[in-house]
Amino acid sequence: MNLLQICKELYPIYRSITGNGVRESLKILQKYVNFKIHEIPSGTKVFDWTVPEEWNIKSAFVVDLSTNEVVIDFKNHNLHVVGYSVPIDEVIDFNELDEHLYFNEKLPSAIPYVTSYYNKNWGFCIAFNEYLKLNRSSKYKVFIDSDFNQNGSLTYAELVIPGETEKEIFFSSYICHPQMCNNELSGPVVLTALASYISACKLLKYTYRFVLIPETIGSIAYLSKHITKLKKNVIAGYNLTCLGDEGEFSYIPSRLGNTLSDKIALHVLNSNFPNFISYSWLDRGSDERQYCAPGIDLPICSITRTKYGKYPEYHTSLDDFNLISENALQKSFDLYKQLIHILETDCYPSLNVLCEPQLGKRGLYPNISTVNSGQTVRDLMNFISYCDGNHSLLDISNILKLDYTNCIDLYSKLFKANLLK
Amino acid sequence: MNLLQICKELYPIYRSITGNGVRESLKILQKYVNFKIHEIPSGTKVFDWTVPEEWNIKSAFVVDLSTNEVVIDFKNHNLHVVGYSVPIDEVIDFNELDEHLYFNEKLPSAIPYVTSYYNKNWGFCIAFNEYLKLNRSSKYKVFIDSDFNQNGSLTYAELVIPGETEKEIFFSSYICHPQMCNNELSGPVVLTALASYISACKLLKYTYRFVLIPETIGSIAYLSKHITKLKKNVIAGYNLTCLGDEGEFSYIPSRLGNTLSDKIALHVLNSNFPNFISYSWLDRGSDERQYCAPGIDLPICSITRTKYGKYPEYHTSLDDFNLISENALQKSFDLYKQLIHILETDCYPSLNVLCEPQLGKRGLYPNISTVNSGQTVRDLMNFISYCDGNHSLLDISNILKLDYTNCIDLYSKLFKANLLK
Amino acid sequence: MNLLQICKELYPIYRSITGNGVRESLKILQKYVNFKIHEIPSGTKVFDWTVPEEWNIKSAFVVDLSTNEVVIDFKNHNLHVVGYSVPIDEVIDFNELDEHLYFNEKLPSAIPYVTSYYNKNWGFCIAFNEYLKLNRSSKYKVFIDSDFNQNGSLTYAELVIPGETEKEIFFSSYICHPQMCNNELSGPVVLTALASYISACKLLKYTYRFVLIPETIGSIAYLSKHITKLKKNVIAGYNLTCLGDEGEFSYIPSRLGNTLSDKIALHVLNSNFPNFISYSWLDRGSDERQYCAPGIDLPICSITRTKYGKYPEYHTSLDDFNLISENALQKSFDLYKQLIHILETDCYPSLNVLCEPQLGKRGLYPNISTVNSGQTVRDLMNFISYCDGNHSLLDISNILKLDYTNCIDLYSKLFKANLLK
Repeated sequence: MNLLQICKELYPIYRSITGNGVRESLKILQKYVNFKIHEIPSGTKVFDWTVPEEWNIKSAFVVDLSTNEVVIDFKNHNLHVVGYSVPIDEVIDFNELDEHLYFNEKLPSAIPYVTSYYNKNWGFCIAFNEYLKLNRSSKYKVFIDSDFNQNGSLTYAELVIPGETEKEIFFSSYICHPQMCNNELSGPVVLTALASYISACKLLKYTYRFVLIPETIGSIAYLSKHITKLKKNVIAGYNLTCLGDEGEFSYIPSRLGNTLSDKIALHVLNSNFPNFISYSWLDRGSDERQYCAPGIDLPICSITRTKYGKYPEYHTSLDDFNLISENALQKSFDLYKQLIHILETDCYPSLNVLCEPQLGKRGLYPNISTVNSGQTVRDLMNFISYCDGNHSLLDISNILKLDYTNCIDLYSKLFKANLLK
Repeated sequence: MNLLQICKELYPIYRSITGNGVRESLKILQKYVNFKIHEIPSGTKVFDWTVPEEWNIKSAFVVDLSTNEVVIDFKNHNLHVVGYSVPIDEVIDFNELDEHLYFNEKLPSAIPYVTSYYNKNWGFCIAFNEYLKLNRSSKYKVFIDSDFNQNGSLTYAELVIPGETEKEIFFSSYICHPQMCNNELSGPVVLTALASYISACKLLKYTYRFVLIPETIGSIAYLSKHITKLKKNVIAGYNLTCLGDEGEFSYIPSRLGNTLSDKIALHVLNSNFPNFISYSWLDRGSDERQYCAPGIDLPICSITRTKYGKYPEYHTSLDDFNLISENALQKSFDLYKQLIHILETDCYPSLNVLCEPQLGKRGLYPNISTVNSGQTVRDLMNFISYCDGNHSLLDISNILKLDYTNCIDLYSKLFKANLLK
Repeated sequence: MNLLQICKELYPIYRSITGNGVRESLKILQKYVNFKIHEIPSGTKVFDWTVPEEWNIKSAFVVDLSTNEVVIDFKNHNLHVVGYSVPIDEVIDFNELDEHLYFNEKLPSAIPYVTSYYNKNWGFCIAFNEYLKLNRSSKYKVFIDSDFNQNGSLTYAELVIPGETEKEIFFSSYICHPQMCNNELSGPVVLTALASYISACKLLKYTYRFVLIPETIGSIAYLSKHITKLKKNVIAGYNLTCLGDEGEFSYIPSRLGNTLSDKIALHVLNSNFPNFISYSWLDRGSDERQYCAPGIDLPICSITRTKYGKYPEYHTSLDDFNLISENALQKSFDLYKQLIHILETDCYPSLNVLCEPQLGKRGLYPNISTVNSGQTVRDLMNFISYCDGNHSLLDISNILKLDYTNCIDLYSKLFKANLLK
């Protein structure tokens, strides 16, 4: 699966927290994974929130009437229009237009990403360089052909892959940002790759749940429908975002910071990416805000590459294909596969004999005891000494400073030798 | 209330662990606060101790009979006589006198403070400079007109100001030291100011108990009478002493070191006086010895300015008005008001909605979401994320490294928005 | 008791995990302590293991038939033959002989110690220097007169000295290594000295159990017979080995690292030998492997001088009388006596009065209170402040940074003053 290629398919589609762009995007992802699409009607109460009217947009532009030049056009870049803008068709002077223009002086070539979901307004976003060129004395025609539908709905995708137990691993990413690459397309495509990978796995210990939802309102709506089941079953999970750039991995802990998800994330990062950046809960900013909220308390944390808000192109038109690469997306995918590998294999081994077992009669010990007994036997003996039912493979790996895969091998040796309960 | 002025009123009065000087001193403080005065009869058993005979003194002096010069006179400074000296009227030579003289070679101009409460003896204290001038070959008349009364009593003051609950905050200081400023007058006057401040407060959550007692025997006697009630009700408390100098604040922990009193003391000191000095329980030396004794275990710690025993003038006549200032006394008073403010306001907020509440519809969120959301909203969101009923305002203040008063403000916003249980 | 002298008696006797050498060695130690000798028949199932056939050896040599010179002879050094070698009487060429020769190129003058307990084989061990001199083109007569006895047994010694309670202190050392001094003779002789010392003690609080067993198979066999009783009664214990050299003391923790044995070991080492070397459980290598195995979980740790495996002469003929000294053996003995002293005396003192006791009336306080109260009174007051029934003498010693013996003195003062429950 070429993840960058999928990003390219999704990139031009206009997405917001509701609307046809989300449906179209999810339909593309259904080509790869058997996601089920769900709709939650506008007006539905979801905890403290209400699912908003569905919003769609056909076109939007600004014309300088002194030259008849189209100075801003939604066709050129989706970010040009403020998300959830109300329709407008008026002629106004520059001063009035100016109150509805958004730009970023520090990044003068970037179109910023601005929304106004819950306050009826309209606006355009442009590069500061372009803004400076606007004629202050012209009249402007502003036109937005957008549509609010009270009978619309919020759209999300879900895939549940059952395993041996009802206990679940939960992966979530959000799909509501127009035309930006790292945030957000990298998240949905890596999630899709993981869902595809898990779909092909046999003998899963855990049930896997994948969701693609609009950020904030989507996770709140999803939680309001599924909270009882999620609280009962989810033992670990991750919120996927900002996974396409080449920056160091970054860790954003769960609210209480000591869940299985955190423990495994820290193990994999410490073992493989010791330069990873460790953030605090106070640095959070995505759907872990809802998943870890008081009373929700799901064991969800997040591993990103460069964290949202920490790279200058974040939430601008410069978050484009210059920022992400197939290599980085695949490396992120591999990291999450490692997390899954540990989740699926970790257990609390317990010896079925008292004292050290006699390894020699099972071919696990050198026949001649010399002054230098090998490190392999040493590792096995160390491993055995923690097979007390209270230390997991991951714990033992951490204590022995031994690769988790080595621990799996040692576990297998003992299992084959019939030494484990 | 001018605290230095009260010190000046109290300074000349001769105090010991019993006697009229304590009564006279407490009567002066009653002008400011409605203290109730209590007497515990001499001979009363109080735990392992017995309330001693009441002791009073009228005059004491030493005359060099070779010159008829009065070389030591209690009239000049109360510290000249050893506390609880037996009466004497004798002519003795220098050698015998010498056995009853106390001085401090390291501080040659200071009269040291010496007592002999539980061993019948007599003595005089003089500056080392004066000691050197004494004629070694003279005869001396020594005269002490003191009085022991088996039918006397130990005097203490108490004020209980009821609040909404029976749960109590306990403030204690000691009143038994003659003619010294920082140790001890600063303690009683700051306690009196606090008692006056609390008396004027309305809507107190907690009941407040203020006591002024002679050190050691007084706190033991007080505890022996009230221990059951105190153990049931006291949730925090402080022993007040050495609060008049300009030195850094100092923290002396409770015995087990993890009480609410310690937690609040450390918060206020860390937030406002980061250069404060942190002592250990092994550095204690005042009535926290009794309040935290095994089996007593009240949650009492102490915040002083320069700790007793840590300034050279301690327990000498140089602990005078050169050492203390109105400014320092007021600053100490303010610090204790801050502790009370936290005690009265701290609580464990708990959100009444699941997931993040929608702040926008309550006017708590900016209408337009831009790349830089303000720190105010960030603080509010962080605060909300810990409103789980398990973190107190103080805990949240510590976690967010946000001023406690800011936390109160955020709490109020949520309370007004009807978002808290 | 001259411990070096006992080592000299034991040194020439050939020992293995079974056989007459162990019996002969234990008989010598019975001269000093009333050990009881036990035999466990060959073939007995002991957890995952089986007690092996008893093995004895009369002679073993290799003759170069080209010169008729005896090039290796068991008579010269016991280490020359691989432990548990099968009997052989053959003429072979050098190449075949070479497959059965063991040497250590890094220590060319040392005969290494090699065994093959559980895999029938034969072999000779020689110094690398001697190996180089062997004629590659000669024929060799190899001769081993050894004997396997299915009806034999494994021999061990045990001494139980009853105290006031059934709670036990357990000391173990191993006796199965031929002709080496530090590992192993130092262990059995120090254990014998301790057993003799305890035998002479009156009024023991705890029961003491001393065992001398062959390493690994012996401790496993011993545990399989006594595990229920040991788990019920043993509160602390130590495995004794490598106690004869002048190196720094070394600490090998129990598996979980927080037992009473560990706590006392660390206290004594920190107090008296602050340069001691602290190892981790992963550095273990002796019978603590069995005593701390999952499900066994006895509170056993180990204090050695230079740890086994950490000195170059370990498990070679150079571990001889150049390595050990009477002085070092006695110092090790003294350290273990200190551990026993703490075990026997430690307790949780609890005051029988509330608040501070009045020390003055009991002669424990200076009559005159001056600015500098003495450190002795200070120590006593500090000590008293932790007599709450929750802190042991050892805890208090650690908190006050006061010698344990000082704590004992303070405890005695309070006990004599009738101030303790």
